[in-house]
Amino acid sequence: MSGRLSRRRLLAGTGVASAALLAGSGVAGVGVAIGAAAATPAGDDPGAVLAFRGPHQGGIATPPQKALVFAAFDVTTDRAGLAALLSQWTGAAERLTAGQPVEGPDGPFDPPPDTGEAVGLPPSRLTLTLGFGPPLFDGRFGLSRRRPAALVDLPAFAGDDLDPSLGGGDLCIQACADDPQVAFHAIHDLTRIALGSATIRYYQVGLARTASGGSAQPSPRNLLGFHDGTANINPDDRDVMDRFVWVDGSGDQRWMVGGTYLVVRRIRIHLEAWDRSTLADQERTIGRVKVSGAPLGSTRASDPVDLGAVGYGGQPTIPADAHIRMAAPATNSGQAILRRGYSFADGVDPTTGELDAGLYFLCFQKDPRLQFVPIQTRLAGNDALTPYLLHTGSGIFACPPGLAEGQTFGHGLV
Amino acid sequence: MSGRLSRRRLLAGTGVASAALLAGSGVAGVGVAIGAAAATPAGDDPGAVLAFRGPHQGGIATPPQKALVFAAFDVTTDRAGLAALLSQWTGAAERLTAGQPVEGPDGPFDPPPDTGEAVGLPPSRLTLTLGFGPPLFDGRFGLSRRRPAALVDLPAFAGDDLDPSLGGGDLCIQACADDPQVAFHAIHDLTRIALGSATIRYYQVGLARTASGGSAQPSPRNLLGFHDGTANINPDDRDVMDRFVWVDGSGDQRWMVGGTYLVVRRIRIHLEAWDRSTLADQERTIGRVKVSGAPLGSTRASDPVDLGAVGYGGQPTIPADAHIRMAAPATNSGQAILRRGYSFADGVDPTTGELDAGLYFLCFQKDPRLQFVPIQTRLAGNDALTPYLLHTGSGIFACPPGLAEGQTFGHGLV
Repeated sequence: MSGRLSRRRLLAGTGVASAALLAGSGVAGVGVAIGAAAATPAGDDPGAVLAFRGPHQGGIATPPQKALVFAAFDVTTDRAGLAALLSQWTGAAERLTAGQPVEGPDGPFDPPPDTGEAVGLPPSRLTLTLGFGPPLFDGRFGLSRRRPAALVDLPAFAGDDLDPSLGGGDLCIQACADDPQVAFHAIHDLTRIALGSATIRYYQVGLARTASGGSAQPSPRNLLGFHDGTANINPDDRDVMDRFVWVDGSGDQRWMVGGTYLVVRRIRIHLEAWDRSTLADQERTIGRVKVSGAPLGSTRASDPVDLGAVGYGGQPTIPADAHIRMAAPATNSGQAILRRGYSFADGVDPTTGELDAGLYFLCFQKDPRLQFVPIQTRLAGNDALTPYLLHTGSGIFACPPGLAEGQTFGHGLV
Repeated sequence: MSGRLSRRRLLAGTGVASAALLAGSGVAGVGVAIGAAAATPAGDDPGAVLAFRGPHQGGIATPPQKALVFAAFDVTTDRAGLAALLSQWTGAAERLTAGQPVEGPDGPFDPPPDTGEAVGLPPSRLTLTLGFGPPLFDGRFGLSRRRPAALVDLPAFAGDDLDPSLGGGDLCIQACADDPQVAFHAIHDLTRIALGSATIRYYQVGLARTASGGSAQPSPRNLLGFHDGTANINPDDRDVMDRFVWVDGSGDQRWMVGGTYLVVRRIRIHLEAWDRSTLADQERTIGRVKVSGAPLGSTRASDPVDLGAVGYGGQPTIPADAHIRMAAPATNSGQAILRRGYSFADGVDPTTGELDAGLYFLCFQKDPRLQFVPIQTRLAGNDALTPYLLHTGSGIFACPPGLAEGQTFGHGLV
């Protein structure tokens, strides 16, 4: 059926992005995997195809797409089965990223190799980002000695209320695309392919991006109504990415060089309480002006955050417990993380009647021991925003580097 | 804060739609409520504002927007409180539809009158459609004698597995927009406004539209991978809409003239079973070719469905239990409904490990006693697709006509 279901014809006429644009998306110098179509990093061109192969995986430095479907899996096979699954996933992911249906036996008496709901839809800047969770290294697959030291088990943080069924996992796939149906379709097909080798543990649909993707994308608003990601790492800045995000040769596992660590947190926002707090309270809690996004005491969102500023009575202009102070690199030994979160809305909590909505927080970093863990420890204990938040899901994953031609997921590991 | 948070400036430069386009959207001759901005019915212009006032509510004949947030509410106040809520909702809905923030006291020591997450986003063709559920007429509000006969309690259908917390409700609001954050924001603010008068009972986020909106929109695919809505009522055809959708003077309640009845069904699709069935099975189940969407035995999706065609051995070309035969007007006494459903994906069912994903089915009609109820009774008992479906939520609502200038929700009723 793959020929009949081809989405490829839709790519006809898609422009080839300039080298400068490719450089901006962090894949400079890498051949585009499929045909002549190529990436526009932050544009809304639905025909755009992002490179599947390169030094780094897509979906990390990529300017955030509009929609997210994040999935985690439990592996139910042995090491050979795991290797076979990762190989099958590689082929499927490469085709899906290019806007093509999954291939396989396709007679009328075979199940269709592709589930079909994305047929006719353009590639929509789909990226698929693979990660390995701590349980994968527990001995079932002979990988105990390959676990990176940085892939820590996250400690319990003050205020956590974690649902184990919404966290953890042996494997994860982050699917991001400008069309939610394209992202869902990819997870749907990868789940189907995993039948007999891995079962889906949870997945999360993201409604809208909250993080900016460098200068090319304006900073969106989260469900608190505030701009989010204003002070995010700029993924266009390769020096900053090398410093804070990409694993280098100083780590303990060679297979992770060029990769990064992903921490995901499902954070419900107590919207009812937040919505009843005053504008002044909200602005003091965040440390920014709600409408403009400017740091308190400044006028523009792009103004630098001056944590030393004092106002009337010698009080700090940005309160001592304001979120942007607590999260700032200056408060965290100079550390920063690349945020790439999405707002979610999953209905009403049947036990409380509250909206089960908030932020699906995804962040990438070189070493969670130096970045997410100490930052979140500080936030959980001190941030004025903490009382409005409830962390209900949590995961950590080692995202390996990108694949060169001929390589498959798990290269250098499995 | 309303002035500071204005989204109105974004409307500058929005074109005024032609009278012909307005006629196509079913609001011909009606003044556009806010300023000079007006509707393009099926375009993707994010600056487009759809008329809030007119003979019919928006979100019914409107070509389906990309995203849905459907919410139901339980009223917790008395009749005067209900009237006040509906009046407040009217003002908020009119502003939201125009891409403007909700107004209210907006000093620094007031809670912001608008939750803020849509500031900076264009109107995105937002529509807000109000409905009244059967419980509203139970006597709490003195409305027992105003309940339309057509607003029946839906019977139990074969195969239902309804969760009461995902169905029913005194009031509903269907929010549709081309940006999911705009739709969520509207429900978020209307829920906040209802504090003390009504509580949100459930809401459902729709990932992607499944129904076509007449000739202007191609037919999308549902999570079965098949085109959906191919044989849907064309909302551009006013004769057909008058025949099947809009309530006329022959009903028992004058306040419903120009309105319609909404039935919503949350239908999980057993995707794992469906994905393992063969292409031939899938096509026989639906009665269409998967890739092209053509009825079996035909070549194009737009070909008429010939239920009388016979093939080899005298067997019907479209099987006796095929979904399109069972759902066809010819099988249902000539009756048809306007479908306006959305695919949903709500994570993994913790009890079965299945994807909790499928179709949030919304349909509009003149009289459910003649339309949805007999059609669904036939489908539940005979449709080859039924074994792949599980209905987990259900609701029915009387959607009153649109509002003229100066009128508020509940006009003629409360």
